Amino acid sequence: MPIAAAIQNALAGSSMIRKMFEEGNLLKKQHGADKVFDFSLGNPDVDPPPAFHQVLVRLAEEDKKGSHGYMPNAGFPDVREALAKKASREHQVAIDGSHIVMAVGAAGGLNSVFKTICNPGDAVIVSKPYFVEYRPYTSNHGAKLVEVDSLPDFNLDINAIGAALTPQTAAVLINSPNNPTGKVYPAATIAALADLLREHGKKTGRLPYLVSDEPYREIAYDVDVPPVLSAYSEAMVVNSYSKSLSLPGERIGYIAVSPDITNKADVMNGLIYATRVLGYVNAPAFMQRIVAELTDVSVDVAVYARRRDAFTAVLDEAGIEYNVPEGAFYMFCKAPARQASEGDDLAFVNHLKQHLILGVPGSAFGKPGWLRFAYCVDEKIIRASAPAFKQAMETWTKK
Amino acid sequence: MPIAAAIQNALAGSSMIRKMFEEGNLLKKQHGADKVFDFSLGNPDVDPPPAFHQVLVRLAEEDKKGSHGYMPNAGFPDVREALAKKASREHQVAIDGSHIVMAVGAAGGLNSVFKTICNPGDAVIVSKPYFVEYRPYTSNHGAKLVEVDSLPDFNLDINAIGAALTPQTAAVLINSPNNPTGKVYPAATIAALADLLREHGKKTGRLPYLVSDEPYREIAYDVDVPPVLSAYSEAMVVNSYSKSLSLPGERIGYIAVSPDITNKADVMNGLIYATRVLGYVNAPAFMQRIVAELTDVSVDVAVYARRRDAFTAVLDEAGIEYNVPEGAFYMFCKAPARQASEGDDLAFVNHLKQHLILGVPGSAFGKPGWLRFAYCVDEKIIRASAPAFKQAMETWTKK
Repeated sequence: MPIAAAIQNALAGSSMIRKMFEEGNLLKKQHGADKVFDFSLGNPDVDPPPAFHQVLVRLAEEDKKGSHGYMPNAGFPDVREALAKKASREHQVAIDGSHIVMAVGAAGGLNSVFKTICNPGDAVIVSKPYFVEYRPYTSNHGAKLVEVDSLPDFNLDINAIGAALTPQTAAVLINSPNNPTGKVYPAATIAALADLLREHGKKTGRLPYLVSDEPYREIAYDVDVPPVLSAYSEAMVVNSYSKSLSLPGERIGYIAVSPDITNKADVMNGLIYATRVLGYVNAPAFMQRIVAELTDVSVDVAVYARRRDAFTAVLDEAGIEYNVPEGAFYMFCKAPARQASEGDDLAFVNHLKQHLILGVPGSAFGKPGWLRFAYCVDEKIIRASAPAFKQAMETWTKK
Repeated sequence: MPIAAAIQNALAGSSMIRKMFEEGNLLKKQHGADKVFDFSLGNPDVDPPPAFHQVLVRLAEEDKKGSHGYMPNAGFPDVREALAKKASREHQVAIDGSHIVMAVGAAGGLNSVFKTICNPGDAVIVSKPYFVEYRPYTSNHGAKLVEVDSLPDFNLDINAIGAALTPQTAAVLINSPNNPTGKVYPAATIAALADLLREHGKKTGRLPYLVSDEPYREIAYDVDVPPVLSAYSEAMVVNSYSKSLSLPGERIGYIAVSPDITNKADVMNGLIYATRVLGYVNAPAFMQRIVAELTDVSVDVAVYARRRDAFTAVLDEAGIEYNVPEGAFYMFCKAPARQASEGDDLAFVNHLKQHLILGVPGSAFGKPGWLRFAYCVDEKIIRASAPAFKQAMETWTKK
């Protein structure tokens, strides 16, 4: 029997990217996995830090009675307290466990947030380019995603966001460090955004929420990622351990809200209810207890910094323009122009494939003319890709 | 700022049960937790089997590279193969890993199923009484839950289901062994339901899916739980390890589909897509690998059987009528009548509270006049509750 029409359409729509991945797998079968330079996926190859392994083994051996059972939907109370301390430190606020809801990764956390705050027809504003899954995360709950352009350096365009605000705006969604650009929004930008939202709230009586998706907070180079919860009363932060502890498969993250949030009881009860009825029920018990002991630990960012430098060298040599990422682990590059026409990201991604290089077109992030390479792969692979990139550029410009 | 109106309403609506739980906690504080007979929650106190602990420790010590990373959204291929063997055995079919999607517990699996198969306005038919969360699990995806009565012995009423079928029926949802009644639907009932659905499909051109929620399959007394996947081509089974391995906090389960399902590729791709965009992304990696090694293991059902017998003795002595459960771990009891009026479950639950006994009114399951006691608690607590039950009945009938 036919499945739901919306799902059928989604499957047809996403088939382009899926086809690319399938072709990538085919390339690996044909040429050997080690001959293909796969920069397509944000799946960290860096191992979880040694402290993770120690806690994992210790808690497995202890295996306390009831430790795999139900707990309150928001999470174990002591885990929530531990993460409140971490969020307080990162966001320069003083929140306690009552401001935390443990989540099934950042993806689960964002769905709980949007179910809680969005009425059908409400809008969530996002700055392009953005993580492609934000679209279903909002449409799941009857909200529509409204895209605005970013500034040329990929910082938030406060004027563009201001122009997009309406009384139906439930939230502005930001992601810093950003996937795919690696941009970290400066404190002044966060402050300006908060001012804008307060101003809008005064005019309309509805203060939009500021939802900050921060799975890459711990992965930043040379810059600090500024606090968000201290900047605006209606702020919610969603974070996970997928990148900071390299645990993307374990689905463990959390939501933290500003200490000054309006109607705190409703917001927290709503987030807890949404977490329950969306079928997460609670974040995985065993991992909750592990991450609570690792609030000061993260993967070695220096590894990613070296890879970034290796990748910029490769791109420089090939003559491909890029944005220098301040955080996360993606190179966002300009699709090179050809014969006086603008760079076509889809065509260039296909062309790169012939040289056994896999990337993702910027079109998938709402930014045609650009492409994303994930550098959460071994530095050797990055260095080894240099001749392929160079050759690809030579054949591209001559075509 | 106000949260979404639908969530606000849901919070107000569920406040009755929450209030009861809060009052229960208050009672425990006042009288001591050991003085309160808490039969309200289905949170198994039975430890996971020893084999679970062994695998947990071994996999923690091994901690293979990449074992906490992303895998295909449907789950690790070898885990899917292992669970296909388990489902094939239980459902007398021959399915392989391509028929399995790993899920964040049965709750996550059901949400993925309903997102995949329900168009807005579609109906899902369910037999009363039923697990209260089925309502949001369907409304999350724009579908409406249509309740039909069961037979006096709580078996499915095939005629009632037939009368409720329309061209908008996306699925019939069954739950066997049933929460809250403990009923196991016999093979003949499943066959009759399958016949009914095939007949309806011939008439309307739309074969409804048969969704079987089976977290209690491994917990049955004296009866076998009949297969479902072999009985009907459009069947999907959702199962979890929350009860069979006592791991409800770990959120690990799976979806298995019939080998003959129509449009298999669409169905499986839809389930995988829904699992991804609903923010589960995938079932927790570490637990996937653990349960794949434990497909022949479950908790000791004899423990629950002894508790059931202890509970029936307590209720017999107090003079409370009950349904003898064939599976799961709930006593579903008649709220006793008073002064020639029908039993009022809400009033009786409140009355029991004064005797420090906590249960859940049948109204919460769509069945006023009944109540549910969970016996996933120590047998000693069940036995110790006998005088309280007796006293409660005496004061109730005299009131």
